[in-house]
This record gives sequence, structure tokens and C-alpha cells, in this order.
Amino acid sequence: MIKIVVDAYGGDNSPLVNYEGTLKALQNLPEVEIVLVGNQEEIENFFADKQYDKSRLTILHAPDAITCHDKPTEAIKTKKESSLYKAFELMRNDPTARALVSIGSTGAVLAGAVLRVGRIKGVKRPAFCPILPTVQNGLVSICDSGANVDCDPIYLQQFAIMGSLYMQKAYGVENPRVALLNIGAEEEKGNQLAKDTYQLLKQTNNINFVGNMEGREVLDGNVDVVVCDGFDGNVLLKSTEGACLNMLKLVKRAFMANLVSKMGALLLKKEVMKLKSLMDYNNYGGAVLLGANKTIVKGHGSSKSEAVYQCIKQAYTMEQNNLCEAIRQAMTEQN
Amino acid sequence: MIKIVVDAYGGDNSPLVNYEGTLKALQNLPEVEIVLVGNQEEIENFFADKQYDKSRLTILHAPDAITCHDKPTEAIKTKKESSLYKAFELMRNDPTARALVSIGSTGAVLAGAVLRVGRIKGVKRPAFCPILPTVQNGLVSICDSGANVDCDPIYLQQFAIMGSLYMQKAYGVENPRVALLNIGAEEEKGNQLAKDTYQLLKQTNNINFVGNMEGREVLDGNVDVVVCDGFDGNVLLKSTEGACLNMLKLVKRAFMANLVSKMGALLLKKEVMKLKSLMDYNNYGGAVLLGANKTIVKGHGSSKSEAVYQCIKQAYTMEQNNLCEAIRQAMTEQN
Repeated sequence: MIKIVVDAYGGDNSPLVNYEGTLKALQNLPEVEIVLVGNQEEIENFFADKQYDKSRLTILHAPDAITCHDKPTEAIKTKKESSLYKAFELMRNDPTARALVSIGSTGAVLAGAVLRVGRIKGVKRPAFCPILPTVQNGLVSICDSGANVDCDPIYLQQFAIMGSLYMQKAYGVENPRVALLNIGAEEEKGNQLAKDTYQLLKQTNNINFVGNMEGREVLDGNVDVVVCDGFDGNVLLKSTEGACLNMLKLVKRAFMANLVSKMGALLLKKEVMKLKSLMDYNNYGGAVLLGANKTIVKGHGSSKSEAVYQCIKQAYTMEQNNLCEAIRQAMTEQN
Repeated sequence: MIKIVVDAYGGDNSPLVNYEGTLKALQNLPEVEIVLVGNQEEIENFFADKQYDKSRLTILHAPDAITCHDKPTEAIKTKKESSLYKAFELMRNDPTARALVSIGSTGAVLAGAVLRVGRIKGVKRPAFCPILPTVQNGLVSICDSGANVDCDPIYLQQFAIMGSLYMQKAYGVENPRVALLNIGAEEEKGNQLAKDTYQLLKQTNNINFVGNMEGREVLDGNVDVVVCDGFDGNVLLKSTEGACLNMLKLVKRAFMANLVSKMGALLLKKEVMKLKSLMDYNNYGGAVLLGANKTIVKGHGSSKSEAVYQCIKQAYTMEQNNLCEAIRQAMTEQN
């Protein structure tokens, strides 16, 4: 049995999507035990008429919530009645609580993880790693995407090792291809950080380092892990997302331009829906904080019930395959 | 009369597209005088039966070319019979040669500019600035996109000033909105470079600083100049381009999926063509090296004739509006 703590608040569609995601997890993942942290009465009302294994759901009462208006690091210290605060308290005090799932404030989740859960011994900096779908219907993980904006090469080397283990344990990718985000393919390219990191990755035994990768290649599907500092990873992630959304906007504009185009759009509806679902993060779980002592999954703020379920399933798979333990081992071997 | 030096070689479709682009410029821009640097006999053969003002075209013979297989910085020093080498020699020795247009090796153009043309007094580092079309049918310039991968805040402050003048002089944008590329909107966000630069830009009088901008906003059309170091600018540019191309690929895949979708695609052809042309850099001139002593325009390697013409027109406009002079003044005021 794997105990997963689920934060009922935070996110645009909370708490309902967290209730529904939890319900689906209880119905579909027999090995999962869930502690749902939120308003007890509200949660009881929701689950009252639902079919599920009651022995695997516990409610931890938390009347308050951390919102996007709160200062994350401050809120996680002071809002002691908030669901996320209580969730992290449980993560710290209950050895059987193995994973946390939240679609709330990223800043608060990262701060809470560092303050309450802590780092795996040997990890210099935990990396916040989202995943993107590729045009080859695969996934690529970006390590780091914002937790560490000023990095040393050794941090990036650890991101590479942790990201590689992540793609193996969470998504069953064998021998993940690890690339360094850079401005050209050649070894001598890039800023000082990239040059130094390249040399370090070349000497790293337990990863499949495939060299430099340019920003334009991230969705091509030829790489499983992109290594970069949190600033560049954030630029890579957001500019890629932004460009995709803007392109969809332009395509939609083209579809709606006139009667003829609207007729064309009608005939294309089915295929365009497929395309949209390929781009939909709701199908791919959340971002993880690699290097934390316990599994932390942060779902997208606008997650729907299915996305919350995917996050819980992702946390379950990571724990089932002992990712944290694998990282712990890799770090001892490294030092 | 404005004398512009055009490199006949480099690029995927050279030299023909450079001949045709030059011809169109001579036919459409009566104030432009062109020195075309390439194989004399070949050029003479091309222009033999064309209608244009012969008094405004000079041929500078250069039998050799710098190719993508050459090491840029090495080639620009040693390949003395190459068109780009000779073009830069002319730029250095002829005071009336005011601008250079090339679709050849970016590395060689940047190296040649630094070695032969030099920097405007007071400019710490020239910035290599491409432009992207926005969804509002405007343009946004990225300063820097790769010339300077390790930067001090003062460099970025100068990029902001030069980029702002560029959008005014080359594209007639009044009071250009200058944003700092960052990982969040708040002033305290970002790495050390971003934080320090933010404070500097706030105090810079002669620009319209609108604060931080995230990677996802670059195509939104709410900003005219994006300020960043060359590494981040390169990631921003390439990941945006890559995502757009991959989306077009997916849309095309959806269109071709089956008979019904193909019929739909047929009805949408006209609108999708419009969309494609909006994304087509051939309509937007090239990237410029801001801070160099003379106007340098680097067209896309796969430029067609129209793109080469647009680059020449762009160089003409920049010279007509005395961009270099404006930057020179701004730098003296700053120091």
C-alpha cells in the first residue's frame, strides 16, 4: 500500500477536481491509500454517495487555503490552517506518507518541500521538472525549469542524473537520452556554464549523454531529458508553450475566417481534437521536484479531474519504482 | 544616394537569390547604390539582359565563398578571395560604403563586423537582433540573440537603448515598449543578471521600460523589444521557432489524416496560406548587428530573392534614418 497526500486546495478548479481525481484514483489504483487534506465536512459530503474503498481514504481537516494572492514562502510558514501547510506537516511527521500531490501555488509547494521534506543526502539542489509531449508521441522532461536560476555545473550534472532516473522509473524509458540545452551542437558552444557542464556530463558514467540540444529541438522527440539551469529551462518551457498556444490561436482564426473555411474546419474537427489532446497536459501528470526526500508532484494550476488523477497515478508509479531510493543511491555513488 | 554592399554567396540559394534581390532593389529603391561582391563574369551574365539603372550597380570580383563547412572566425581572416572577406574589406576602406547585406554564415558576419567594421564608441558589446512576427501583425525584436552569451547588466542596458532606437528607425515604432526577459512578472524575480538589469532599466531615461516578460509572451504583440543575454535570447528565439514549425507539422498531419480531413484542408487552403505567410521571415528582412560602426544586416540562410530584397530595403531604411548616428549619440549621452 502506498500512502499519498493530496492537497484539496489551490488551482483554478479546486477543490472539486481534487475530490474527483482522488475518487478516480481510489477506484482505479487498488494499491493507493490517500490522505485528502481540506475541509472535512465538504469532503464527507462529496464522498457520501460515492462508490469506493473507504478503508483507503483518510481526511485531514484544513479549513484554510493558500491562494495565488499569498506570498508563497511566507504563506507556507504562517498559514498553519491551510491545506498545503497541513499536508507538508503530515509529510514530515508520518514516515508512511510517501508522496504529495498538489495543484496549488508552485512557489509554496517548492518552499514547503525544502522546509518540511528536505533534500536527499548529497543533492546540491532539487530540480523542478515538468514534462512536455513530443511530436513523436513521446515525452521530454526539462530539468530544471525554475527552482534554481543561478547554477553551478555540478548542479546540472545532478539534474542530468536525477532526470535520467526519473524518465526510467516514472515513464519506463530505457537508457534515456540526456541533452544539454545550448545555442549550438558543437562542444565548444555556449556560455561558461554550458561549456563547463558539457565537460562534466561527458565524464558522467551513469547517464546516456547525447550532447548539446538547441531550443528548437525540444519537441522533436529525439531527447528524453533536457538539462539546463532553471532560468533557461523556464524560458524554454514557456516560449515553447506560448508559441504552441499562439499557433493554435492563429489556426482557429484561420478556421473562423469565412463560411468556406468554417466548412473546412467542420470536416477537420475530429483530427484537430486529436491534435489538441496531444498538446493537453491534462494527460501527462504534473511536474516533479527531483532530489527531495519524498515524492512531490505539482499539477498544473488549471488541472481538471483527469489531470489530478494522472498526478496521483504518476506519484504512485514513482513510489512503486522507488525513484527517491534510486536517486539516493546514485548520489552516494557519485560522492 | 546610399551605398550598400551585397554579399553574393553564402545561404542555401546563393548566388541567384542575391542577384535577383539586388535587381529588385535597383528597380524599386532609386536612392540605393549597390556593390555586389561575387563572381564578376557570372554577375555580368545575369544582369546582361535586365532592365535597371546601370550607374547604380558596381561589381566587386570575388571568386571564392565562405561556406557552412568553414570555421567562421578562421575563414573571415584567411579566405581572402571570398565574397564576404572582400565585402568587409570594402566596408572598412570605403567611407561611402554604409551598409552590408549577407545571407551567409552568421558566425563569419559577426566576426567580420567586429574585426573590420568595429564598434560604435561607448558600445560595450554589439547585439545580434532578429525580429519575429507577432499575432497582432506587429514585430518584436530580440536583443541579444547569440552574439553575447555571458553578459553584465550594463550590456543589457545598452541592448535596450539600441533595440529601442532600432524599432523606431527601422520600423517606425513610436516609443517602443522594452521588456526584460525573465521567469516572472514581479520585480524581484529571476537570476542575478535579471535582477540587476531590472534595476538598471528602471533608471534608464531614454527607453520605455515596461518591466519583465515571460517566454510565452514573445509573440503576443504587447512588446516591441525583448532584452536578454545572447544565450537566453537564442533559447527564446529557437524554441519559439521550433514550436511554431512543429505545430504547423502537426496541423499538416491532421489535414492529411484521411479523405474527409483532406477535403477540409482544401477548403482552408487560402486561409492557411495567409497564416503561413504571416510566419514567413522572407517578408521581414534580416537580423541586424546593433552597435557596429556601420549597418550590418544578416538575412536568413534559406532566404529567397524577396527576403534578400527586404534585407536591402531594411538596410536602406536604417541608413536613411541614421540609426548608427542615433546610437552614437545615445552612447555619448549615456557616458
